[in-house]
Amino acid sequence: MFNVGLIGLGYWGPNLARVLNQTQRCKFVACADLQPQRLEKITRQYPGVQGFASLADMWEKVDAVAIATPISTHFDLAHEALSRGKHVFVEKPLAHTSAKAQQLVDLAKRNKLTLMTGHTFLYSPPVIRVKELIQSGVLGDLNYLSFSRVNLGLYQKDVDVLWDLAVHDISILLYWLGETPTHGTSFGRACVQRDKNDVAFIWLQFPSGVIASIEISWLSPQKMRRTCVAGTQRMVVYDDTEPNEKIKIYDRGVEFTAPQNFGEFQLTYRTGDIVSPHLGNSEPLLTEIEQFIECSETGATPRSSGEFGSNVVRVLEMVTENRTLFKGAMPEALAGSRR
Amino acid sequence: MFNVGLIGLGYWGPNLARVLNQTQRCKFVACADLQPQRLEKITRQYPGVQGFASLADMWEKVDAVAIATPISTHFDLAHEALSRGKHVFVEKPLAHTSAKAQQLVDLAKRNKLTLMTGHTFLYSPPVIRVKELIQSGVLGDLNYLSFSRVNLGLYQKDVDVLWDLAVHDISILLYWLGETPTHGTSFGRACVQRDKNDVAFIWLQFPSGVIASIEISWLSPQKMRRTCVAGTQRMVVYDDTEPNEKIKIYDRGVEFTAPQNFGEFQLTYRTGDIVSPHLGNSEPLLTEIEQFIECSETGATPRSSGEFGSNVVRVLEMVTENRTLFKGAMPEALAGSRR
Amino acid sequence: MFNVGLIGLGYWGPNLARVLNQTQRCKFVACADLQPQRLEKITRQYPGVQGFASLADMWEKVDAVAIATPISTHFDLAHEALSRGKHVFVEKPLAHTSAKAQQLVDLAKRNKLTLMTGHTFLYSPPVIRVKELIQSGVLGDLNYLSFSRVNLGLYQKDVDVLWDLAVHDISILLYWLGETPTHGTSFGRACVQRDKNDVAFIWLQFPSGVIASIEISWLSPQKMRRTCVAGTQRMVVYDDTEPNEKIKIYDRGVEFTAPQNFGEFQLTYRTGDIVSPHLGNSEPLLTEIEQFIECSETGATPRSSGEFGSNVVRVLEMVTENRTLFKGAMPEALAGSRR
Amino acid sequence: MFNVGLIGLGYWGPNLARVLNQTQRCKFVACADLQPQRLEKITRQYPGVQGFASLADMWEKVDAVAIATPISTHFDLAHEALSRGKHVFVEKPLAHTSAKAQQLVDLAKRNKLTLMTGHTFLYSPPVIRVKELIQSGVLGDLNYLSFSRVNLGLYQKDVDVLWDLAVHDISILLYWLGETPTHGTSFGRACVQRDKNDVAFIWLQFPSGVIASIEISWLSPQKMRRTCVAGTQRMVVYDDTEPNEKIKIYDRGVEFTAPQNFGEFQLTYRTGDIVSPHLGNSEPLLTEIEQFIECSETGATPRSSGEFGSNVVRVLEMVTENRTLFKGAMPEALAGSRR
Repeated sequence: MFNVGLIGLGYWGPNLARVLNQTQRCKFVACADLQPQRLEKITRQYPGVQGFASLADMWEKVDAVAIATPISTHFDLAHEALSRGKHVFVEKPLAHTSAKAQQLVDLAKRNKLTLMTGHTFLYSPPVIRVKELIQSGVLGDLNYLSFSRVNLGLYQKDVDVLWDLAVHDISILLYWLGETPTHGTSFGRACVQRDKNDVAFIWLQFPSGVIASIEISWLSPQKMRRTCVAGTQRMVVYDDTEPNEKIKIYDRGVEFTAPQNFGEFQLTYRTGDIVSPHLGNSEPLLTEIEQFIECSETGATPRSSGEFGSNVVRVLEMVTENRTLFKGAMPEALAGSRR
Repeated sequence: MFNVGLIGLGYWGPNLARVLNQTQRCKFVACADLQPQRLEKITRQYPGVQGFASLADMWEKVDAVAIATPISTHFDLAHEALSRGKHVFVEKPLAHTSAKAQQLVDLAKRNKLTLMTGHTFLYSPPVIRVKELIQSGVLGDLNYLSFSRVNLGLYQKDVDVLWDLAVHDISILLYWLGETPTHGTSFGRACVQRDKNDVAFIWLQFPSGVIASIEISWLSPQKMRRTCVAGTQRMVVYDDTEPNEKIKIYDRGVEFTAPQNFGEFQLTYRTGDIVSPHLGNSEPLLTEIEQFIECSETGATPRSSGEFGSNVVRVLEMVTENRTLFKGAMPEALAGSRR
Repeated sequence: MFNVGLIGLGYWGPNLARVLNQTQRCKFVACADLQPQRLEKITRQYPGVQGFASLADMWEKVDAVAIATPISTHFDLAHEALSRGKHVFVEKPLAHTSAKAQQLVDLAKRNKLTLMTGHTFLYSPPVIRVKELIQSGVLGDLNYLSFSRVNLGLYQKDVDVLWDLAVHDISILLYWLGETPTHGTSFGRACVQRDKNDVAFIWLQFPSGVIASIEISWLSPQKMRRTCVAGTQRMVVYDDTEPNEKIKIYDRGVEFTAPQNFGEFQLTYRTGDIVSPHLGNSEPLLTEIEQFIECSETGATPRSSGEFGSNVVRVLEMVTENRTLFKGAMPEALAGSRR
Repeated sequence: MFNVGLIGLGYWGPNLARVLNQTQRCKFVACADLQPQRLEKITRQYPGVQGFASLADMWEKVDAVAIATPISTHFDLAHEALSRGKHVFVEKPLAHTSAKAQQLVDLAKRNKLTLMTGHTFLYSPPVIRVKELIQSGVLGDLNYLSFSRVNLGLYQKDVDVLWDLAVHDISILLYWLGETPTHGTSFGRACVQRDKNDVAFIWLQFPSGVIASIEISWLSPQKMRRTCVAGTQRMVVYDDTEPNEKIKIYDRGVEFTAPQNFGEFQLTYRTGDIVSPHLGNSEPLLTEIEQFIECSETGATPRSSGEFGSNVVRVLEMVTENRTLFKGAMPEALAGSRR
C-alpha cells in the first residue's frame, strides 16, 4: 500500500488530510508545512501522521504526495517530487504558466509517474451526470454553454478572479466537451484592488462550433453557480446552489422547417417534461484522491491528468493574454444620452 | 386635444390601441393596416376609431401617430409623418441603421416636432426605481452591470436576437448610466437559422469606467430577466420574472485597506439588510404614451427621445459591426484533452 | 345549437361571457344584470348578445343559463331556471346550504336537466394530471394531503374565508380521492371583521383512511397555492404559483421492514428522480363551459355535477358546524412561561 | 471554572462535545456512554476529556452535566445529577411526561441548581430577531401563526413525529408569545409504522386570542421549515431553509373601516417594502451552552429554563391526549362523489 504525504496545510490542505485519512486505499503517513501550529493540529487529529517542517526529511517516507500550497509554488514542489520519483497530485491550477505545466507533464511521462491535477468538480455527481448526458447523445448537438460563478468574496491574495474561479468552469467545459477552444478572450475590471480583476467575462470558441460564455465575480450580492447547456434535442441547467435539484433536464427545442413554396419559414417549438435526476452523494474529493492512488498503482491516466490540467492552464493563459482592452475608439461620438 | 392615429396592428399594435383608448389625454381617432381583418377588429372594439387601408387618407385626420410596424419600415413611415408635420412615436428600435435614425432626429428638430422611441422599460416602476437609486448616490460608484435576458423563442422574422432582445437592455443601460459606451463587441452563434444569431453576448465599456455584460438568447430552457448592478456601497438585483420582489437592494460591499507596516492588505466584507421596495403598479405603456402626448403638446423632450433611441441604435450597430469573430488562430495546438 | 344566457355580470361574469363567446358549441344570446352599465358594456363587446334588466323577459330566449351572482341568490335563480326547463350552470358553491343544494339536484333530476357547478379547478391541466396519477396507481396508496391557499385579501362580502377559498381545495380533494370525508372540523379566527373568519384550518378524515389538512387565509403576506399528495410509492407537490413547474412528482418513499431476529426494525428511504411533466395549456373555463353544453345536449353527467357540487357544500357545512371551539379548559394551569 | 461532563455520545452528543471543547467558559473534563467505541472516539478527539463507562465514577469529577441520551432516560439521569448537586442541561424534550418534568423543576429549585432544557432554536439568530420584532411592537397585535416542519425522514425510534419535530415549533411559539396555550388538539396518521404517527397537525389557542397551527411530517417530499407570523401592522415569514434570507418582514396589512351612512364597510390594503434583515452568524449551540455555564455560575434563569422546558412538555402532552379522533359519525351519508 502506498505511503502518501501532504504538502501545505493552509485553507484547503485539511480537506485533503481528511480524505487521505478516510480512504482505505493508501496510508497517510506524513504532512509538511512551514507553520508549526498547523503541523501540530493535523498530527494531533491523525495520530499516524508525522509532521515535517522541512521537506528534505519527508521524501524518503512517501511514495506519493498531494500538494496544496499557493499556486506560485506548485511548479517547484511538483518538479522536485517528480524528480525524486514520487507520484504527484497538485491542486488546481497545475502551474502559473502553461510552459511550466507542460514541463511537469513531460517530466512525469519521462519518469513514468502519475501526475494529477485537483479539478475536484470532475468527480462531483452532477458534473459527471451532465458529461454522461452529452456523451450519450440525448442532448443532441450542443449549441452553446453559459456559466455564472459569482458571489461576494473570497478574494485570493496571489491570483485574480479569473485564475481563482474560472479555473473551475474551464475544467468542467473541457471535460464535458472533450475538446479545447481554438480561441478565447476575456473582459474584466479591477474594482477593489488595483491591477487585480475581481469581475470578468470569458468567451470561448470550440472547434466543433460550440461557443461558451463564463461570468465570474467576487463582487456579486447573490451567489450563483449556474450552468446552462443548450443542445438541439434537450437542454440542461446545472445549478450547484440547489440543495436537491442540481440538474434539470428540459425536453425542449426549436425545429426549423425550410421555406416551402410560399416562402415562409416555419419554427416549431417543442416543450416536454422536465426531469431532475437523482444523483448519488459520493464525495468528490474522496473519489478524486482514490483515483489518484489507483492510477499511481496501475499507471492508468486519471480523468484530471497532468495533461488535462495543463490544457486548463493554457486556456486561462490564452484568455488572459488575449483580453479585450478596447484600445480603438468608437466610430463617432455618442452625444446626448448623458442626462 | 390631439388626434392620434396608430399605424400597424400586428403583434404589438393592439397594445398601443388599448392605452390610446384608455388615456384621457388624447383622442384615438384612426388606425391603419394593410390587412382588412385587423382594421375591422380594432374599429369594432373601439367604435370612435376610423380604419384606413391607405395612409394617404389618414394624415389629415391626425396630429400625431404611433408606429408599430416591422423595423425595416420604421424609417420611411416616420419620415413621411414628420414631413407632414405630425408628432411621431416609433416602436423600438427607432430605425435599422443609426444613419437613418439620425436623419429622423434631425428632421424632427427642423420641423419642431416630437420624435419619441417606444423604449417601454424606461417607464416601468422597477427600472425607474433603480435609476433613482443610482442618481441618489446610495449605490456609491458603479463597478459593473450584468444582464441576462434569455428564454425559448420567440424568433423574430426580420432581426436577430441582438436587435430583438438586447435593444431592451441597452436602453435600460443608457438610461441608468446617463452615458453611452465608448466601445463594445458581441459574440454569438446562429444555431437554428443560418446567418441569424439566436444566442449572443455583449461587452460594453463606458467612459466612467463602468463595464457591462449582456447575455441574450432565444434558446434557453429557463426564462431569465435578471440584472445585477454592483455599486461600491450597495448592490441591486432586478429580476423581472419575480412577481413581487422585482428589486432587491443589498447593503453589501468590500472595502480595501492598503497594506500597513507588515505589508499585508486587508479586505473587509460588509453585509447588511436586504430591502425589496414596494413599487407602484402603474402601467409602463400608458405612462409612456401619456408622456408622448404631453411632450407633443408642450415641446418638452421625452425620456426616450428620438435622440435617445438613435443612441440605442448606434450601440446595436457598434456591437454588430465590431463583433468578435476569432479569425486568428490559437498560439499553439491544444492536444490531448479530446477524450 | 343551444342558446345560452348569462345571469350576473359582476366580478366573475365577464369571464364566463368571454368563453361563451369564444366557444363554437353554443350561441351566447342573452345576459342579465340589475346594473344597466354592466349590461351595456357586455352587449357592446359582444354585438350578438341581448341585455336584460329583468329575467322574466330572458327565459324564452334561452335553452340554458350560467349563473354568476352572489352565493345567497344561487338557489332562487337556479330553482327558477330549472323549473322553467333550462339547463343550469351555477358558480361555486352551488348553494349556501346543503339542503338547498340537494333540492336543486333533485329538481334537475326530476326535470331531466343538466345541473353543473362551476368548480373550474377540476378542468385545469395540473389538477387533471394529479387525478390521473392517483387513478393509475403510480403514487401507490395515499397517506395524506396538505393544502395551503393563502394570500393578502381579497375579502368577500357575503362569505368567510372558508366558503371563499376552501371551496376550491375541497372540490379538488373530492375529485382526486373519489370519496367524501366521514368527519371534519375547522378552526379559525376573525381578525379584521367581527364574526367573519379570515384565517382557518380544516382537518378531514376519509373512509379509506386518508387524512387531509387545509390552510386558508386572507391575511398572509406571501401568496401560496400549494398542495402535497403523499403516496406510498410517489409523492406529488402541486404549486399553482409556479409558472412552469406546477407539478413535481417525487419518486420517494419509506419502506418499513418488520423486526428480524434481533428485534430492530428497519426503515429504508428511497430517493429517485423528480419529474415535472409538461401540461397542456388548455383553458379550464372554456373546457368547463364546453362540457356543460355537451352534457346539456347529451344528458351525460358533468365532472362537477350538481351532485358533486352538493357534496362540496355538505363538507363546507360539516366543517363549519363542527368547528373546534375549545370550550373546555386545560387540565392544569400553565404558569411561568410568560416572560 | 466549572468542570462539565457529557452523558450520551450517540447522534447528538458529539455536537455538544464540540461546543463544550470550544468554549472558554468551562472545562470539558468527562464523558460517559455505554458503548466503548463512542467513548474512545471522543476522548481521542479531545485529549483532556476522560471517558466513563459507568456514571458512578464520573460524578465526583464534574460540577455540571449535559445529557444527550434517549428521551425515556432523561428523567432518571437528570434526577440523579440534581440529587448529587450538579447543574443539569438536558436535551429537549425535558422528560417524557409533564409530571416528571415538573419533578425535576422542583428538585432543581430545592437544591438551588440550574436546570436547563436544550431548546437550541431559542438561541438562533432568526428566532431571536422575530422575538425582538414581536416585543418591540412593530408587528402590531398578532393575529395568527402557522408552522410547517416537514421532510422525508428521519424516523425516531422512541417517539412519534409530534414529540420529535413539533417540540421545536412549540418551544419557538412559547418563547415568541410569552404565554402558553389554554387549549390544543392534534390530528395525525401512522402511515409507515403502526401506532406511531409520522404526519400530524396541531391547533393551539392562546389566552391573548392568538391561534396557531403546526404541520409536521416525516413523509413529505420537500423539506419545509416555514413559519408565518401575521401581525396587524407587519407580517413575518421565517424560512429556515433559506441560506441568506431566513427572515422577511412584510409591511402589509388590512384595515377595516366600519360602515358609514350608506352601510358599506371598507377594507383598505396596505403594501409596503419587504426587508430581510442581516442576522449575525453566531452558533446557537455554543450560545446555549455558554448561557448554561453562566447561569450555573450566577444563579440566573436561562431562557430555556427547566420550567420553560416543562411547559413545552405540557403542551406536547395536551395535544397528544386531546387528539381529534372523530369518533362520532357524519350527520348524513355522503353519496355519489365516489367515481
